[in-house]
Amino acid sequence: MALSRFEYVKQFEQEEKLLPNSWIVVRIDGKGFHRFCNVHAFNKPNDLDALQLMNLAGMTVMQEFNEIAIGYGQSDEYSFVFRREASVYQRRRDKLVSYVASLFTSAYMFHWKRIFDQRALAMRYPPSFDARAVLYPTDENLRDYLSWRQADVHVNNLYNTTFWNLVASGLSNADAEKRLQGTLASDKNEILFSQFGINYNNEPVMYRKGTILLPKSVNADGKKQRFIVPLFEDLIGDAFWTKHPEVLDKKAKTDTVYELDEHKTQPVILYQLEVQDRRKAGMSKTEPKAKVLLEPDSS
Amino acid sequence: MALSRFEYVKQFEQEEKLLPNSWIVVRIDGKGFHRFCNVHAFNKPNDLDALQLMNLAGMTVMQEFNEIAIGYGQSDEYSFVFRREASVYQRRRDKLVSYVASLFTSAYMFHWKRIFDQRALAMRYPPSFDARAVLYPTDENLRDYLSWRQADVHVNNLYNTTFWNLVASGLSNADAEKRLQGTLASDKNEILFSQFGINYNNEPVMYRKGTILLPKSVNADGKKQRFIVPLFEDLIGDAFWTKHPEVLDKKAKTDTVYELDEHKTQPVILYQLEVQDRRKAGMSKTEPKAKVLLEPDSS
Amino acid sequence: MALSRFEYVKQFEQEEKLLPNSWIVVRIDGKGFHRFCNVHAFNKPNDLDALQLMNLAGMTVMQEFNEIAIGYGQSDEYSFVFRREASVYQRRRDKLVSYVASLFTSAYMFHWKRIFDQRALAMRYPPSFDARAVLYPTDENLRDYLSWRQADVHVNNLYNTTFWNLVASGLSNADAEKRLQGTLASDKNEILFSQFGINYNNEPVMYRKGTILLPKSVNADGKKQRFIVPLFEDLIGDAFWTKHPEVLDKKAKTDTVYELDEHKTQPVILYQLEVQDRRKAGMSKTEPKAKVLLEPDSS
Amino acid sequence: MALSRFEYVKQFEQEEKLLPNSWIVVRIDGKGFHRFCNVHAFNKPNDLDALQLMNLAGMTVMQEFNEIAIGYGQSDEYSFVFRREASVYQRRRDKLVSYVASLFTSAYMFHWKRIFDQRALAMRYPPSFDARAVLYPTDENLRDYLSWRQADVHVNNLYNTTFWNLVASGLSNADAEKRLQGTLASDKNEILFSQFGINYNNEPVMYRKGTILLPKSVNADGKKQRFIVPLFEDLIGDAFWTKHPEVLDKKAKTDTVYELDEHKTQPVILYQLEVQDRRKAGMSKTEPKAKVLLEPDSS
Repeated sequence: MALSRFEYVKQFEQEEKLLPNSWIVVRIDGKGFHRFCNVHAFNKPNDLDALQLMNLAGMTVMQEFNEIAIGYGQSDEYSFVFRREASVYQRRRDKLVSYVASLFTSAYMFHWKRIFDQRALAMRYPPSFDARAVLYPTDENLRDYLSWRQADVHVNNLYNTTFWNLVASGLSNADAEKRLQGTLASDKNEILFSQFGINYNNEPVMYRKGTILLPKSVNADGKKQRFIVPLFEDLIGDAFWTKHPEVLDKKAKTDTVYELDEHKTQPVILYQLEVQDRRKAGMSKTEPKAKVLLEPDSS
Repeated sequence: MALSRFEYVKQFEQEEKLLPNSWIVVRIDGKGFHRFCNVHAFNKPNDLDALQLMNLAGMTVMQEFNEIAIGYGQSDEYSFVFRREASVYQRRRDKLVSYVASLFTSAYMFHWKRIFDQRALAMRYPPSFDARAVLYPTDENLRDYLSWRQADVHVNNLYNTTFWNLVASGLSNADAEKRLQGTLASDKNEILFSQFGINYNNEPVMYRKGTILLPKSVNADGKKQRFIVPLFEDLIGDAFWTKHPEVLDKKAKTDTVYELDEHKTQPVILYQLEVQDRRKAGMSKTEPKAKVLLEPDSS
Repeated sequence: MALSRFEYVKQFEQEEKLLPNSWIVVRIDGKGFHRFCNVHAFNKPNDLDALQLMNLAGMTVMQEFNEIAIGYGQSDEYSFVFRREASVYQRRRDKLVSYVASLFTSAYMFHWKRIFDQRALAMRYPPSFDARAVLYPTDENLRDYLSWRQADVHVNNLYNTTFWNLVASGLSNADAEKRLQGTLASDKNEILFSQFGINYNNEPVMYRKGTILLPKSVNADGKKQRFIVPLFEDLIGDAFWTKHPEVLDKKAKTDTVYELDEHKTQPVILYQLEVQDRRKAGMSKTEPKAKVLLEPDSS
Repeated sequence: MALSRFEYVKQFEQEEKLLPNSWIVVRIDGKGFHRFCNVHAFNKPNDLDALQLMNLAGMTVMQEFNEIAIGYGQSDEYSFVFRREASVYQRRRDKLVSYVASLFTSAYMFHWKRIFDQRALAMRYPPSFDARAVLYPTDENLRDYLSWRQADVHVNNLYNTTFWNLVASGLSNADAEKRLQGTLASDKNEILFSQFGINYNNEPVMYRKGTILLPKSVNADGKKQRFIVPLFEDLIGDAFWTKHPEVLDKKAKTDTVYELDEHKTQPVILYQLEVQDRRKAGMSKTEPKAKVLLEPDSS
């Protein structure tokens, strides 16, 4: 039963390595999330908890790979941008794509209880995600990619907000759809304002802009540490890129401490603080540091 | 904020489609499972429950894709063989590799409690898996691939069984390793027999041969249905392939009912029977049939 | 001016290796041959000399690679089938595709004078060819590929033969095209027969079936040697494959001597005989054997 | 004999498209040119005519593709740099690589007589070239690629110049090799100077730096036209890139007329002038303009 007679089959593995010195975007997409949202009765058009769960899963992926420059999530998708010089798994496509998909999935399930226990929402069946890797050779292409995703959430969220308000007001889904056919952004803004008294620009920024995740130095517990920080900003204009130069340029000075301010209450931050507390309390002494972040509550 | 200005970035997606009419093997591999096993105190060299959990996850993948001809699991890996003519996702590599990895991961987590609750073993941190796709152009190449994996489990399990018996008898890990250096299979058999009274061939067949999963027609609950059935057999010789012609030849008659016999108590079978019972009891009337298999216990 | 500072750029070379154990078809296609035929006033619908020149170029490629099982040419294209086990250039795609294209091109130009001097036809500008590599996993797929090309020459040649006879009879190109619109094969056969007294099946078989090139053992000059032999046969039915088992099965007995018979006067054969004569006459003593086949006439 | 039954085989063609917005370098390499040089008794270490023939072939490729920003040749290799935005053949790898190889080969053969007739050097057998395509995502990577090739010619030419002078002075090849083992550039310069009175920096610049080909506006025959112009310059430093900004930036002003000066006598220029003269003389009225450049002498 010698292995050797069969080992030739290894030669059939063809491991594509992604072009060096180009940005690698790995984008995660929920499989059949329309049904998953319905079965779990997520709020429409946005379920804050479900989005925060996505953010916790995105945080987990970014904690695992320190070569991710920026993460961006909206709806049931998340994009992770690996730096040009990233050498993870020697840039092997299969490894990268499958591992990010798997890690995101397991983190999503792992954090479920943390997010949904207060709503007593049990997971009826396990979610899954696919992933793809896309290369961008220039910084401009990368920015345009991220702009594309942020423009997408704007278009969809404006539509969905108007749609579900129309439905809430009594229209059937079909009638609401018909009402919106051919309307421009300005029309939808007008419907929201005149019919429902809603100023779209006052809608929660996370719904309108999606969530940006960046690794930042923060002051936590009296000392400077690396946290994955959520931001809710426009990234299409130049301001974002001027404010966070380290995204495009690894060598940009990033030792300035980032002030968490009002983001301190974001679940992503609360979780990292809690893990730190537990670690300090010596509860996890035996665990390697990096992985401890994922340990379940001791409760 | 028009999408159109940025949409050109979609052109950078390069979707490789796997060569038609060749076997696609997607192999899942545990990431850092050495540590995962230690943290969760899995038995060595084999933890029956942990292997059954792998089998439940493998079953879930095979329920999702009816184009998988055979699944094969051993240790922390699982291979899924998609038929030559499989058209799933138009054979797109990224989609296939990432989705199988994600689905296997979520199923592994989802079934954890079912397997480990009796041992009161909580998941300390979420596991993850990577995946790769490999093409095999001929039936012979495919058989050699599966033989390679089964020969691998034999070699490893014989080694590990001897190693951990030596350790249990008082040797340090280092001394056990030294004792086994350069030994042949016959030497290890001899150590097991003379020193520990163990006839290796009487070790549980699942440990020695791994688990084969096949879709079969079975009699369950008085009617014929398609079940994912676990087998523990040699697949290197011809006998297996003669007995199960439908693996290589989709058109081979498969309407003969497969007798579950002693496999009736396998967790993979028990689970499918239980889901069926629940479905019959009308508990899942509203759920689409295929997905119901993954619903959590009603308890 | 150290190389080392720049050598990292080599890492950007991504050499795809073609899947092992599958048939590799490299197909050559003339670039802009419509114009090339017009400029050189090739006969329509078929120019025997031009086709023989293609055959000489095809022969040259097959002499260079002993891993080609069969060559097939028609119109301005030529297919070369590398055996499943071919290891040429480690099956690197770029190398294989570019080198076959280059070699075919140079052979086409090199043999030009041999073919066209009698017609005093000078090459007005150099021709060029592109190439692609396609993998076929099974023998059946490969046979279907070759059948596809041979069915293609049938369809095109029947059309072209009818078209150019109509034009020769006085119709404009446009009128001939209109006359043939929507006609079936049987209609074209009927036009040829009733209007021009031509029985299509009596047209030269090379025009109707294309040219097959096989490496064969022949008796030349009193001893058995390997020649590239042209055949003009149907390869869609089974007869061809029964008669030439070595095409699909490298191990099939091929030491039977192939009788050239009426093919002795084919330019491809005449050329190989002539090279042999010259070699025997000691004219090429200093040249390596393989390459000598391409030496120009001593005249 | 319907095509349709077999046409499914087209699905097996997998056409890789090269990543958008990245530089494509197609590099041609002579196959077995060591032997080709010997058989044709090319001068060592450099044969000016043979290099000029390479330049004429390079010119032909650049005339065919107006998306080539720069060509660079040395020894038996030539690199063609397609612009980031090049859309030739939709950037299909097989097409691009094979066609450039074929075109370069045919041009090399076509111009042979023009170059070698004065030496009465007949082509003994046809040369061939392979090609590969390599992507470079940034301008810096591209410059480093070209620097790598120019540093290579320097290292090789210094070695070869010293080597062949040693051989000419009476050393055997083996002794010359031994003499140079472990020597630095400065040592070789010293040998050349002290032993042979040669100042390496006075060696012909084409031998030391290779040939750069650029499309330029030149004054020819009283009007401005686009010519492929040979340059012999250092391209490792910044000066070259400042002087020729249009290489990296398509939009850089290039309407300034490039003065041919001493390059007027380069075969590449002489050929283009001659074609123009012939065209003016009406000899090629019926030929499309682009292709006319390759027409043979009227003689």
